[in-house]
Amino acid sequence: MNSLIVLRTLGMLLLCEAITMLFPVMVAVIYGEDAVFAFLASLAITAAIGLVLFSIRVKNKIIRYKEGFAIVTFGWLMVSVLGTLPFLLTGALPSVIDAFFESVSGFTTTGATVINDIEVLPRSLLFWRSFTNWLGGMGILVLALALAPALGVGTFQILKAESPGPISTKLTPRVNNTAKLLYKTYTVITLVQAVLLALGGMPLLDSLIHTFSTLGTGGFSLKNLSIGAYNNVYFETVITIFMIVSGANFSLYYIAFRKRSLTGLFGDSEFRTYISIIAVSILLITLNLTGGVFDSILESFRHSSFQVASIITTTGFSTTDFDLWPDFSRAVLFVLMFVGGCAGSTSGAMKVVRIQLVFKYIKREVNRLIHPRVVKSVKIGGAPVQEEVLSGIMAFTTFYMFVFVATTLLMTMQGYDLVSSASAVATTIGNVGPGFGMVGPATTYSALSGFSKLLLSFCMILGRLEIYTVIALLSPRFWKR
Amino acid sequence: MNSLIVLRTLGMLLLCEAITMLFPVMVAVIYGEDAVFAFLASLAITAAIGLVLFSIRVKNKIIRYKEGFAIVTFGWLMVSVLGTLPFLLTGALPSVIDAFFESVSGFTTTGATVINDIEVLPRSLLFWRSFTNWLGGMGILVLALALAPALGVGTFQILKAESPGPISTKLTPRVNNTAKLLYKTYTVITLVQAVLLALGGMPLLDSLIHTFSTLGTGGFSLKNLSIGAYNNVYFETVITIFMIVSGANFSLYYIAFRKRSLTGLFGDSEFRTYISIIAVSILLITLNLTGGVFDSILESFRHSSFQVASIITTTGFSTTDFDLWPDFSRAVLFVLMFVGGCAGSTSGAMKVVRIQLVFKYIKREVNRLIHPRVVKSVKIGGAPVQEEVLSGIMAFTTFYMFVFVATTLLMTMQGYDLVSSASAVATTIGNVGPGFGMVGPATTYSALSGFSKLLLSFCMILGRLEIYTVIALLSPRFWKR
Repeated sequence: MNSLIVLRTLGMLLLCEAITMLFPVMVAVIYGEDAVFAFLASLAITAAIGLVLFSIRVKNKIIRYKEGFAIVTFGWLMVSVLGTLPFLLTGALPSVIDAFFESVSGFTTTGATVINDIEVLPRSLLFWRSFTNWLGGMGILVLALALAPALGVGTFQILKAESPGPISTKLTPRVNNTAKLLYKTYTVITLVQAVLLALGGMPLLDSLIHTFSTLGTGGFSLKNLSIGAYNNVYFETVITIFMIVSGANFSLYYIAFRKRSLTGLFGDSEFRTYISIIAVSILLITLNLTGGVFDSILESFRHSSFQVASIITTTGFSTTDFDLWPDFSRAVLFVLMFVGGCAGSTSGAMKVVRIQLVFKYIKREVNRLIHPRVVKSVKIGGAPVQEEVLSGIMAFTTFYMFVFVATTLLMTMQGYDLVSSASAVATTIGNVGPGFGMVGPATTYSALSGFSKLLLSFCMILGRLEIYTVIALLSPRFWKR
Repeated sequence: MNSLIVLRTLGMLLLCEAITMLFPVMVAVIYGEDAVFAFLASLAITAAIGLVLFSIRVKNKIIRYKEGFAIVTFGWLMVSVLGTLPFLLTGALPSVIDAFFESVSGFTTTGATVINDIEVLPRSLLFWRSFTNWLGGMGILVLALALAPALGVGTFQILKAESPGPISTKLTPRVNNTAKLLYKTYTVITLVQAVLLALGGMPLLDSLIHTFSTLGTGGFSLKNLSIGAYNNVYFETVITIFMIVSGANFSLYYIAFRKRSLTGLFGDSEFRTYISIIAVSILLITLNLTGGVFDSILESFRHSSFQVASIITTTGFSTTDFDLWPDFSRAVLFVLMFVGGCAGSTSGAMKVVRIQLVFKYIKREVNRLIHPRVVKSVKIGGAPVQEEVLSGIMAFTTFYMFVFVATTLLMTMQGYDLVSSASAVATTIGNVGPGFGMVGPATTYSALSGFSKLLLSFCMILGRLEIYTVIALLSPRFWKR
């Protein structure tokens, strides 16, 4: 493996992270918070380490599969580690493990927290938390690619390894142009949501923070009760719509914008399936809640649609304690934690297109039983899917289930109950945030053991990088020459 | 499809079922029970329907894929339907749905019951329940194949569709000889266990009943407290060993007997993995139970080993209410409900070899990421596995999970809690028997709704016939010319 290009790229990445820390510095200055010193120190340390690594001279600038995996996995780990500095230096989280959990949860857009009372934190730190959601959503390496004009040859490997979903598309022949376009699209949508929230009367900082967490499908709020704190249907409607927007493929928006037409969006098979799953789930939960939990069907619909959008897009905001809902509604939400949004979105979990392809794969096998000699290729949106991509998806799906089961066993081994354990794992590996029981929306992850917090942090990174990237690095064969 | 050969074969199958009803008739005569009339009537009805169907004249005697699937699925359904007669005619279960659930549970070797007090039932009926476990274990169609010298051409399709596991082996070139050998091996092992139990002091009828339920990995007992009623370490040891024996591939025993050597057994990769999973599970649960649930490590080991053997082999006997165990132990048992025993055994669930191959498949995909141009074939026990078999297994595994999730949702929809629902589905689709919560080992399925009972009966048949056989029939393409 070409270690030098890996280290140099990591240096570049940390320099980017240092630049992003300028934003919370500004917020701290505006609000006259002491946290400004903590952020300046964090920025300085991150920039210093970044500079040292970036100054490494590299002759061979070729990035292949192996280098791509190493850059992405170690990149996310280092960015998360240095992202702990603001939490540690402001004194908000004195424990290193807690700070790491919170930082990983931010960058991976999980939005699970160990802070029991977030409302007492400095506003600049609340801004930072949600800003990491935003950065992690589109990808910190995609950002680095957008900022760096020429990092090396083969940077598509990085884009591929970091982007959610089984197939990565280049919008332009040059990778850094694709990265730039994605971030431009992302920024435009971000501004629209923030303005809409502010126009509805949400304080400016609150609007920005919630917009960041929505677009990145992270779910960090600055209220202990999340969006429920406002009890405002307008805010909920705006956020629901933008959560659903963030759970779809961003390339589609760029193409729709270029073509000035939404037909491409609804012509996309994954998008249609995604919208159908959301509609059916909202309907089922609305019916289940009406009468028992809420008196009116409208109130049921209000909370059902918000929670469904929040969970399937793996955002994790809440407007009510859905852990108190009947088991059927909880079971539907639990399943949605595994589904996730579309490939190429900022959401986590398995992604709709994978679920679609698994079903098509099963259907083909059943047909093969009936007509053993006729084996057709699996198609999506009319185009045949390569057999390699299919077997990758089948392995991904079963591996995802295996990690879920094994980690749940490790959680119950510590004495936590089955539902809390299983939902904590499902929600962290799916980058959702809240689960059920001990980790329900009305509580935090603070009571869990240090081991559990590290384990779940690992799940979050595994989920965000879609398992393979991380697992390839853990394989002994990876390190063989 | 060649419907006539299907109907004729179903007739033959019912004639075989009628013959098996002679055994409970004998038991009823011996004990002087009134149930003798119920059994004679059941026998007569079954034989009459069988004769009508068997008298159909068939010109084209070729059994292909389609006919194989139809014979197996409709065969199991009809045998279960006529198996309800003894429950209905003795008055033990007045409800048709209850009788159907009990009958399906018997033949599919699930061993879930809707009878709250089984100790008041006639002994001949208790015998019948466990005898259906025994018949269903090795396969009722395998029995028919063994009894019928020439059913048609292509009967291997039947053996293949009914036998558990992804690959079926012919022990001899002729299918009916293979079927005979399997039943002979099965009978010999049955006799050994019954004698061992009787020698230890278990009443003769109890020995027979428990042996039938052990060998078929069914788990029907004649005691409300199952094997726990005896509180006898010798009985538990014998049953544990024979449960483990019944969860392994019966072809291996036949080969070991022919070669007078056990090396073939331990040379089998699936068998070694099966034994390792059992050993590790027993160890983990023993450690988890000691101190909290049982004072001594020996007592923990005693109950841990019995319950692990009972669940992984999908038998479902119990010596204690394992639903009261800590969540970690319950979670391990829950996972074992999905694993099951070996292919070619009488056990249910996914089977060890499939789990092995899923892992090997995942490993290959990870290696492909590192070295994209090197794709090796997956091997088991040194021999390469066909790609078709592999994709069949991947589809089976994901389909199994899908059925589990969808049926669990249907259960929670009726208001049952998540753990009871999920375990009821896992335990019926895996043909285990007891689950957790509402369907724990200390309770029965009687309190569930009629819809739930039918739904879970469907799961049992789906699980016993390993999904594909049934699903192929539900596919519209199956019925196209």
